[in-house]
Amino acid sequence: MIASAVITGGKKVRGIVMISEKMKDLVKNSSVIRAMFEEGKKMAAVYGAENVYDFSLGNPSVEPPKAIREALLDILNEEEPNLVHGYMNNSGYEDVRERIARSINEKFNTKFTYKNIIMTVGAAGGLNVILKTLINPGDEVIVFAPFFGEYRNYVSNFDGRLVVVSPNTTTFQPNLAEFEAKITDRTRAVIINSPNNPTGVIYSEETIIAISDILNKKEKEFGSSIYLISDEPYRELVYDGAEVVYTTKYYHNAIVGYSFSKSLSLPGERIGYLVIPDEVDDFSDVVEAANVANRILGFVNAPSLIQRAIARCIDEKVDVEIYNRNRELLYNSLLSYGYECVKPQGAFYLFIKALEEDDKAFAAAAKKHNILIVPGSSFGCPGYCRIAYCVDYSMIERSLPAFKKLADEYLAGK
Amino acid sequence: MIASAVITGGKKVRGIVMISEKMKDLVKNSSVIRAMFEEGKKMAAVYGAENVYDFSLGNPSVEPPKAIREALLDILNEEEPNLVHGYMNNSGYEDVRERIARSINEKFNTKFTYKNIIMTVGAAGGLNVILKTLINPGDEVIVFAPFFGEYRNYVSNFDGRLVVVSPNTTTFQPNLAEFEAKITDRTRAVIINSPNNPTGVIYSEETIIAISDILNKKEKEFGSSIYLISDEPYRELVYDGAEVVYTTKYYHNAIVGYSFSKSLSLPGERIGYLVIPDEVDDFSDVVEAANVANRILGFVNAPSLIQRAIARCIDEKVDVEIYNRNRELLYNSLLSYGYECVKPQGAFYLFIKALEEDDKAFAAAAKKHNILIVPGSSFGCPGYCRIAYCVDYSMIERSLPAFKKLADEYLAGK
Repeated sequence: MIASAVITGGKKVRGIVMISEKMKDLVKNSSVIRAMFEEGKKMAAVYGAENVYDFSLGNPSVEPPKAIREALLDILNEEEPNLVHGYMNNSGYEDVRERIARSINEKFNTKFTYKNIIMTVGAAGGLNVILKTLINPGDEVIVFAPFFGEYRNYVSNFDGRLVVVSPNTTTFQPNLAEFEAKITDRTRAVIINSPNNPTGVIYSEETIIAISDILNKKEKEFGSSIYLISDEPYRELVYDGAEVVYTTKYYHNAIVGYSFSKSLSLPGERIGYLVIPDEVDDFSDVVEAANVANRILGFVNAPSLIQRAIARCIDEKVDVEIYNRNRELLYNSLLSYGYECVKPQGAFYLFIKALEEDDKAFAAAAKKHNILIVPGSSFGCPGYCRIAYCVDYSMIERSLPAFKKLADEYLAGK
Repeated sequence: MIASAVITGGKKVRGIVMISEKMKDLVKNSSVIRAMFEEGKKMAAVYGAENVYDFSLGNPSVEPPKAIREALLDILNEEEPNLVHGYMNNSGYEDVRERIARSINEKFNTKFTYKNIIMTVGAAGGLNVILKTLINPGDEVIVFAPFFGEYRNYVSNFDGRLVVVSPNTTTFQPNLAEFEAKITDRTRAVIINSPNNPTGVIYSEETIIAISDILNKKEKEFGSSIYLISDEPYRELVYDGAEVVYTTKYYHNAIVGYSFSKSLSLPGERIGYLVIPDEVDDFSDVVEAANVANRILGFVNAPSLIQRAIARCIDEKVDVEIYNRNRELLYNSLLSYGYECVKPQGAFYLFIKALEEDDKAFAAAAKKHNILIVPGSSFGCPGYCRIAYCVDYSMIERSLPAFKKLADEYLAGK
């Protein structure tokens, strides 16, 4: 009652936008995918959801393993509520971290303990924690195009400078000569992502060894520490028995960021971890700082109940065969229509060559056929588009005539 | 096999610490409470857990309402797994946000919709999101001592400048004259916290009106927007029927940060929300930027399952009478031993005057009696100590002789 009388000072300073300068740019750059998302909803209303082929988002379509539900039910029925929902060490429950360390050790013959594991709010949280830990303003962080566009924002959060190595569009393995040339005395970290978003390519053992050799050489040359951050949300999603080597076995300053978002189809739960091996330079400072960073950035800790649940299903994964069926159908069909694309070995993306130089124009042309795909520019790789095939098989089937028509528009005369 | 041969370049640059400059300071300043936590564990091993009185942490001791467990079980049994654990809008599920808006409207006669609510990773996540949204480097953020020490870190995350208004140790209401004097053309935000951590004091309606009047005046004087951020994790924990007014009804640029950590004893789950009213300057820019900030900071979204659970128990709360019993026993006992303290009206903290000038020395003296309390310096208010009474009643009972001996050491001769 008093309130309405009290609110009298409200004036709008016209023309001055009140959000921070940094956010103005970030919001502007965010608007492409956001616009696509809104467009998709509008299109579904006009044409019917059945007739819109939305391949824009990496939101897993395969159900979480049944073990997850059972683990959650068991924990709620068996464990003490204040433990299940309470604060723990900012780095996570020690028993959960120990369980994860053991699982990695069994798979990769490593020697981690809970001290090497920090539970994080997904891989996105983990990357922000490790960048906060390592990056001074102006420090350089190298990424290989094409790369997950959010890396740009994460590095910007700490006023680092993103250095992009241009793509090798033949294999989509990293361009190593350019990589070596771009390392300077300000290079603090390198982010790799394999299986890769957006290409689905897995970096070969040869690639990881070559990256490691270059980094060792450059560390000596500059007397610096250069951390190799391996972002691995797609590690478990691989096809045809492909292998993803464990980076910490190849380079002394490697740090792994992992997420259960895709391996267990839990992207909304925000659960992942960092692996910081004993071998990294200044190990104890780095893990202590990462613990503090987890708190200070406002994560405080990875969500508690789901920490306890993933520990109970650590070696479960989603049925990758469902994604594989999608991959085979879409890849083979698109090739038969005349599209060009490297066959993905992992993740759930196809990265096709746009049928005209301008990938944004091509994505716009696709939209006229009710196909929603993301221009490669968003991944630092113009001239390509990403198709996220973590969707229903039946939607892929329904979309094929539209993909064919789109190709025919461009290729008919050739 | 190759790996061990490959790791050859590892050299330690001695004397150079590899973590970022900012983190070095943050880790150093973090070490007081961390040392206390480690000390507590050591003491429990030496003296037995029964004989150590750990009042250092604000970790709720009261069980979550049974409705939380039931809601979680129901959701797991009834709802579709990819919806329960999947991505949603970065600001949260619309139906959850709408449910929260309705609950606030019913209690405070406001007119919010889901558009005014952004689900966040606890209040800590929410504060970081809104500060990222609003703060340019060098912008000033005012807090009133004593204040939750993490505000210093959150403001530092965005290179803001924390401006501290010194405490009024008679009432622990804000020092309004000093507040007005410290507002400049760089003042971008003010953070208040009521019921207050560490004092338990509730800011009166009079106080909120006075703050609002001052801010309105200063906004006009400087032609600026000054946002009042009300951090309210303790809103539901109040005693003797005390009232906590709803800030958005008193000031046009008020933003509320809420958390379910204490109201539902779910601190590990990291679930809270921001309320951004239509009335705030540049409303649509602010909510859009906050949505993007939630994603970019690495939260992506508040954890999904627990979002859906709190929506089903929105008007539940923990049994506050348990904390009230603790409060009465501890407050009355300490006063009878000669301690000085404002009686808390909310939260679960007592903020006692240290019995010597140096609050750190006093906390050290308390530790000799196996009592762990946090020096007021950590809250910008030296000369006091915080006692967190969110503990078992029986621990308080056991601790009383130790508190009495401690007082007698200082007061016996007087």
